Amino acid sequence: MSENYQPTARTRVVREPHRGVYDRTEAYKILDEGFICQVGFAINGQPFVIPTGYGRDGDHLYIHGSAASRMLRNMDEGVPVCVTVTLLDGLVLARSIFNHSMNYRSVVVLGTATAVKDLAEKLKALHALSEHILPGRWAESRQPNEQELKATLVLRLPITEFSAKVRQGPPLDDEEDYAFPTWAGVVPLKMVAGEPINDPRLNSSHAVPGYAQSYTRGAHE
Amino acid sequence: MSENYQPTARTRVVREPHRGVYDRTEAYKILDEGFICQVGFAINGQPFVIPTGYGRDGDHLYIHGSAASRMLRNMDEGVPVCVTVTLLDGLVLARSIFNHSMNYRSVVVLGTATAVKDLAEKLKALHALSEHILPGRWAESRQPNEQELKATLVLRLPITEFSAKVRQGPPLDDEEDYAFPTWAGVVPLKMVAGEPINDPRLNSSHAVPGYAQSYTRGAHE
Repeated sequence: MSENYQPTARTRVVREPHRGVYDRTEAYKILDEGFICQVGFAINGQPFVIPTGYGRDGDHLYIHGSAASRMLRNMDEGVPVCVTVTLLDGLVLARSIFNHSMNYRSVVVLGTATAVKDLAEKLKALHALSEHILPGRWAESRQPNEQELKATLVLRLPITEFSAKVRQGPPLDDEEDYAFPTWAGVVPLKMVAGEPINDPRLNSSHAVPGYAQSYTRGAHE
Repeated sequence: MSENYQPTARTRVVREPHRGVYDRTEAYKILDEGFICQVGFAINGQPFVIPTGYGRDGDHLYIHGSAASRMLRNMDEGVPVCVTVTLLDGLVLARSIFNHSMNYRSVVVLGTATAVKDLAEKLKALHALSEHILPGRWAESRQPNEQELKATLVLRLPITEFSAKVRQGPPLDDEEDYAFPTWAGVVPLKMVAGEPINDPRLNSSHAVPGYAQSYTRGAHE
């Protein structure tokens, strides 16, 4: 069952409100399909937006370290953040320039991110992060040791205040423009995986595993 | 000729500094290949990150309206923003979990965005935005009228303070891990365009134009 929730004034979709989605199940589908998120935070009023890997474990997002470094340099407490995941599905070519658009699905999560310090939780978070990107890979890799766990920054963000925004389908022109003499429609876009490239130092007895060979991401129709 | 510039304390790449790129030509290549940017701004200390379309005209970025609406609701002056463009090129599978990574190219631009009010500049900005996404489309569309121009929010951001960050190539494992018995390498990722989908209301005398039929984005090797 999907769970609807009431958006706050900060997460209610203001522009094109009919595109707002406040259903947790729908938002999680989008979060689970993305590869990277964009972490926003502010230092002395200056916003920063840093791309980074992430994973979801239940109702928490776990954000990977490199984004955290600048953010955490001067802060040991929680940090107000915005985490945004965007999936681009197509270019929407209308008859008028004004009605050109893109098809996309995006999720915005607002809240306070805190550093994960407990090593067991950190290991669990890294597992979620790894399985999020490439299910099956964790079990076939050399596991993190204590020193590496300590060196990795992981942030936890509860998925409490969020919204999704979705645009799909054909262009929507003003009625009088439908007679304008030009092609109109959608150019679909998709992130696809290519043929895996062996590490030049690969021991040739290790074949490309199935999860890397025919990699497809939660297909969206 | 490429132009190097000195990063500021705010744009110098802190994590993995060898991946920092401060060359304007390289940064512009990345900006010109992306479809959407992520605009970061803060309201009362709470950061927001909103995906939106953009275009570049010389040393200025032009950002499209929907992102601007929340940001501009209470502000008529310039707004401190961070605009980030991220291109994902692959998943990097190392032998150790710790050295897993992604191949990507990203650009971060910091500065003060201001609303474009002059209608002639706005038209020029929208042209840059349109040509950025789909070269050739502008000339075949119904042009914006004065009412539409006034209804469209466009922000201007000078590309003054910026940095790029790039990771490419095979995994880099710790020396002792190269003997670990697993496959290692890169799963390349690429945004590709599919077969154009006609608008259901298309007049069938309009064929799919070349710029939509065989759409390829500035290929990166």
